[in-house]
Amino acid sequence: MIRAAIVGASGYTAAELIRILLGHPEVELAGLYAFTKAGQELTRVHPQFKDLLDRTLEKPDYEIIGKSADIVFFATPHKVAMNHVPTVLRGKARVIDLSADYRFDDPRVYEQYYTKHASPDVKAVYGLPELYREQIKQARVVANPGCYPTAVILSLAPLIKHDLIELDHVVVDAKSGTSGAGASPSERTHHPLAGTNIAPYAAISHRHRPEMEQELSKLAGRRVVVHFTPHLIPAVRGILSTAHVFLKKAKTQAELLDLYREFYSREPFVRIRDELPQTNQVLGSNYCDIGLEVDFESGRAVVVAAIDNLTKGASGQAVQNMNLMFDLDETTGLHLPPLRP
Amino acid sequence: MIRAAIVGASGYTAAELIRILLGHPEVELAGLYAFTKAGQELTRVHPQFKDLLDRTLEKPDYEIIGKSADIVFFATPHKVAMNHVPTVLRGKARVIDLSADYRFDDPRVYEQYYTKHASPDVKAVYGLPELYREQIKQARVVANPGCYPTAVILSLAPLIKHDLIELDHVVVDAKSGTSGAGASPSERTHHPLAGTNIAPYAAISHRHRPEMEQELSKLAGRRVVVHFTPHLIPAVRGILSTAHVFLKKAKTQAELLDLYREFYSREPFVRIRDELPQTNQVLGSNYCDIGLEVDFESGRAVVVAAIDNLTKGASGQAVQNMNLMFDLDETTGLHLPPLRP
Amino acid sequence: MIRAAIVGASGYTAAELIRILLGHPEVELAGLYAFTKAGQELTRVHPQFKDLLDRTLEKPDYEIIGKSADIVFFATPHKVAMNHVPTVLRGKARVIDLSADYRFDDPRVYEQYYTKHASPDVKAVYGLPELYREQIKQARVVANPGCYPTAVILSLAPLIKHDLIELDHVVVDAKSGTSGAGASPSERTHHPLAGTNIAPYAAISHRHRPEMEQELSKLAGRRVVVHFTPHLIPAVRGILSTAHVFLKKAKTQAELLDLYREFYSREPFVRIRDELPQTNQVLGSNYCDIGLEVDFESGRAVVVAAIDNLTKGASGQAVQNMNLMFDLDETTGLHLPPLRP
Amino acid sequence: MIRAAIVGASGYTAAELIRILLGHPEVELAGLYAFTKAGQELTRVHPQFKDLLDRTLEKPDYEIIGKSADIVFFATPHKVAMNHVPTVLRGKARVIDLSADYRFDDPRVYEQYYTKHASPDVKAVYGLPELYREQIKQARVVANPGCYPTAVILSLAPLIKHDLIELDHVVVDAKSGTSGAGASPSERTHHPLAGTNIAPYAAISHRHRPEMEQELSKLAGRRVVVHFTPHLIPAVRGILSTAHVFLKKAKTQAELLDLYREFYSREPFVRIRDELPQTNQVLGSNYCDIGLEVDFESGRAVVVAAIDNLTKGASGQAVQNMNLMFDLDETTGLHLPPLRP
Repeated sequence: MIRAAIVGASGYTAAELIRILLGHPEVELAGLYAFTKAGQELTRVHPQFKDLLDRTLEKPDYEIIGKSADIVFFATPHKVAMNHVPTVLRGKARVIDLSADYRFDDPRVYEQYYTKHASPDVKAVYGLPELYREQIKQARVVANPGCYPTAVILSLAPLIKHDLIELDHVVVDAKSGTSGAGASPSERTHHPLAGTNIAPYAAISHRHRPEMEQELSKLAGRRVVVHFTPHLIPAVRGILSTAHVFLKKAKTQAELLDLYREFYSREPFVRIRDELPQTNQVLGSNYCDIGLEVDFESGRAVVVAAIDNLTKGASGQAVQNMNLMFDLDETTGLHLPPLRP
Repeated sequence: MIRAAIVGASGYTAAELIRILLGHPEVELAGLYAFTKAGQELTRVHPQFKDLLDRTLEKPDYEIIGKSADIVFFATPHKVAMNHVPTVLRGKARVIDLSADYRFDDPRVYEQYYTKHASPDVKAVYGLPELYREQIKQARVVANPGCYPTAVILSLAPLIKHDLIELDHVVVDAKSGTSGAGASPSERTHHPLAGTNIAPYAAISHRHRPEMEQELSKLAGRRVVVHFTPHLIPAVRGILSTAHVFLKKAKTQAELLDLYREFYSREPFVRIRDELPQTNQVLGSNYCDIGLEVDFESGRAVVVAAIDNLTKGASGQAVQNMNLMFDLDETTGLHLPPLRP
Repeated sequence: MIRAAIVGASGYTAAELIRILLGHPEVELAGLYAFTKAGQELTRVHPQFKDLLDRTLEKPDYEIIGKSADIVFFATPHKVAMNHVPTVLRGKARVIDLSADYRFDDPRVYEQYYTKHASPDVKAVYGLPELYREQIKQARVVANPGCYPTAVILSLAPLIKHDLIELDHVVVDAKSGTSGAGASPSERTHHPLAGTNIAPYAAISHRHRPEMEQELSKLAGRRVVVHFTPHLIPAVRGILSTAHVFLKKAKTQAELLDLYREFYSREPFVRIRDELPQTNQVLGSNYCDIGLEVDFESGRAVVVAAIDNLTKGASGQAVQNMNLMFDLDETTGLHLPPLRP
Repeated sequence: MIRAAIVGASGYTAAELIRILLGHPEVELAGLYAFTKAGQELTRVHPQFKDLLDRTLEKPDYEIIGKSADIVFFATPHKVAMNHVPTVLRGKARVIDLSADYRFDDPRVYEQYYTKHASPDVKAVYGLPELYREQIKQARVVANPGCYPTAVILSLAPLIKHDLIELDHVVVDAKSGTSGAGASPSERTHHPLAGTNIAPYAAISHRHRPEMEQELSKLAGRRVVVHFTPHLIPAVRGILSTAHVFLKKAKTQAELLDLYREFYSREPFVRIRDELPQTNQVLGSNYCDIGLEVDFESGRAVVVAAIDNLTKGASGQAVQNMNLMFDLDETTGLHLPPLRP
């Protein structure tokens, strides 16, 4: 059994990790760590787990965690993991960081969007299995992708890899449910305001943008700018990303769908659809559904990806990465059919 | 023109007051007062009012407010008004308090459910026009009813006044949208949790219960216990109260509807419906819609009332009271047809 | 492997059955049957199952189904099963009917609330494992309970069994998400109207009422009237039932909680909570969470039960029954931790 | 008093017209006409109007309507007005058509997106007051703009008029609440599916696209292609349109905001905001709120517009047009402060 520890256990990505790992046949939940909620019963913080997991949240001692756990999930806000992963790595544990701390090849990008990096020398693999499967298997530290980047990179990788689109006019307009904002109440997620609202935010400089750009630029072999704008809408789970891109050469919808089907032919969690996807087809599952339409006359392709932000967009993908790291079938514990309705 | 001041201008009942008073032909919004948000532009706190009202929120000086305003609305949390109304009353102003501070005839009840009362000698009229119209006209201080009590008292008054029901088995089960929880974010109104949730709260001892009991007991001429349980559901506006009561003598639905129609025949804001009401028929308006069904065999009557908690349940009713106090047509400024959808 | 057939595969309870059975290690989905949608791909009707189940919906031939399947789930509207179960039973198959057709001991009750019964001689066991576990194991036909009755019976059984409450004043006020209304669009589930609405319906004579009364009366040993009123609220999944009952003798909350814990001590899917439950703690799972509060002074107990109407309220319970019928561990395939958020 | 008739009175834009006109001091609601619901009480179809308007829906006789009404609102589905407006025009009435029938200068465009036009010779003015105020005043027939075009045209007009953006890469991604889908229930607006969903639709060829292109092309003086994709999200009211455009010359956010403030300086219903707008700031009102951000480095401007689709996106704008046609103050009856929350 793989002994798994979760740091930041009071948050939503931790809750989703626990939901998934409770059904994972090869994992034992070894320790749940929190900060202000240390000392509380897990079921007080996440009442859904009553009778499923009887634990008290503990204050983390990273030295001990690194020695006793096989895998440590950092389900923490940004700026936590970078201070403690080096300590964990002194033990035997491997690490999957669900925060942004190790996602950037260049620590200066991290510094620009977040803060000065505390452990820039730690080497991590970007945990998108569809692009880095082999490297993930060998990684000591995996940087689990952001929710938006997961949807956006998967929806654009085939087009960019095949050099089919104008790279200076890549527009991505994304919509997210409110669970992406995390467990801390705030005015923007206050139900009386959020319950009927459509709200753009971080319209030109969302922190997930450099992450997409880094990965898509590597695929393109040159710098890609992603004109990215996210919106908060009154659903709880789900991200829909709508990429508007301009084809360099005329292609039909059928040709592009073939290309996507080929590109993702061995992927267990990417489903290419004949029609544009909707989030209610993926909720609760680890799927990324992708569909597209082509405006042949104008040369625009619309590529839409739908994920559950907490699953493929966070914790499901983290478990997928863990499976790869421990040489398990990649889908172990991830047979989670979507709930619809 | 009536010069109106609003204390507690950053909250939702204040926003609703402003929405209504902007269309009131006899009122001038003289001062908007806040505490932690004093000094901010109104439109920063309530962005909907851009171009409609250009004001800065001020710190209240109750002495001055009492001298300069004709009517002062306390749209404050409980325990504020009781400390400052006496100061306001030294001036010429009259007061409508939307908090609970002056709703109880007996200050000990207030003390039991809230705190020790700071100004128990201030005399106030309970601001339910359907019961206290004449007294409201003369009142210096009106205690605007709570949102639940408005729905519950109006839905039960005819039955209790006519001594038609068993007074020891009055069960009222109420459901409210989240705006009733106010403008301060908290876990229970955090959209990721509240957006799909049905949550009972204060199941046996909600603070609005003694208020209903006080008024219904006066109507009955003896003590009425209201077995009251409210629930939070994922709508923003709207309260539906469902009263389950047992008839002392057999009555048909038609007979009871006639009774209600007669009881409320002169009321501009109570609509008796042939069918059970739904909240989407009253949102944005000052109406209280009431309907009922009778289970003839078992002797139960189900009386349902629907209101917009911010309008008839708070600010609309406050304006209705103000109209009475200033001898205006009671409906002035309250011609607010419901929005459906 | 148990060969399972589902009749009525285009509906929501069928979708939930498929979601659960896809993860059931002992079941093979043998046939999916539909009527107007026969001939369509499953994934056209339920797009969430792409890559998970590749099937075409077929027109049912009940003779063949009865011979080839081990278990037949009728996930059909009322009035379908009663016409075809006798044919199915000529084969070897056993039957779990998720509709109301076989829930009543007395076919005259069915006739009163639905229609004249076409096969009143078929004997079925009421499929609430907490009450009828042993009978279910032996049953040829199981009548799966309605969603509301599941919550209501489980929440009241301990009190009634122990004769603790007044049986003539049992009030149950229930709230349901819209998925309970089924897959057919109608005005009452049209999002522009339902999305902000709180709506009572069938306030005195809901079809689930005689079902609760039948079972609670058997427990009481005499006729129990349930004063039941349901409401539709703007959530998709989830039922919360709030029972307001009057204690014959004074009991504390702690005493009653002990009683409930004892009563359900061996039940894998009933969780007794220290606090009142909320639906967001059970969504996607087979749990029925129960909590209660006692108003000692007035003698009222408020007993609240929360279920996912599609899971414990329908398809999860059906699988629980199937497990019992085929001598499997009762929880097989039902390790479905709730999704929260 | 202006005598107003509404054809198509059972729909949502008609309900919104009635809501507004009930408060309009110069209008008398002369006749409400419907088709399948003719003969029904208005309050059976729109229960919110109980006690506000006591009318029976009538079958339309266009000859008589044209003679007796001063203004006829066609709040009908597409393809109705074009068959009957010529008859109405034989009388004295003027017409505001809320459908698409008269929005296109070139009837071949209508034919391509809808059907062959039955009355291509009727001349209509496009009813966007911000662009066509003087022509509207003189018009016999006004074609009220679509909901999406209202938001999109207003958000792009200043940039296009001043030739500031690349016209071959205008991307507009829009999000709408479900009331835009109208009053007829369907699977896409069925609450169990729509209540948690984010769904793109008509991604390359929505019917509102040629309407935007027609108007923006006229402003540009040459053909503008709008790369338009709408989405349905789980709110009831509100449209947010997000335009992603590329500046021909570097401009700061402040420069562009100045340009917008200047362009709309005399407009009563366009509010230019310092921050990006959200729909909860305009619901229930006739405002179009616009804000923008500039990504100086990449040259992209993001221009966001928020409207209530039923008000400025339909019926509020229709009343604004009527006011112009009858030489009233343009804001008469439209003092509708937004509801927030």
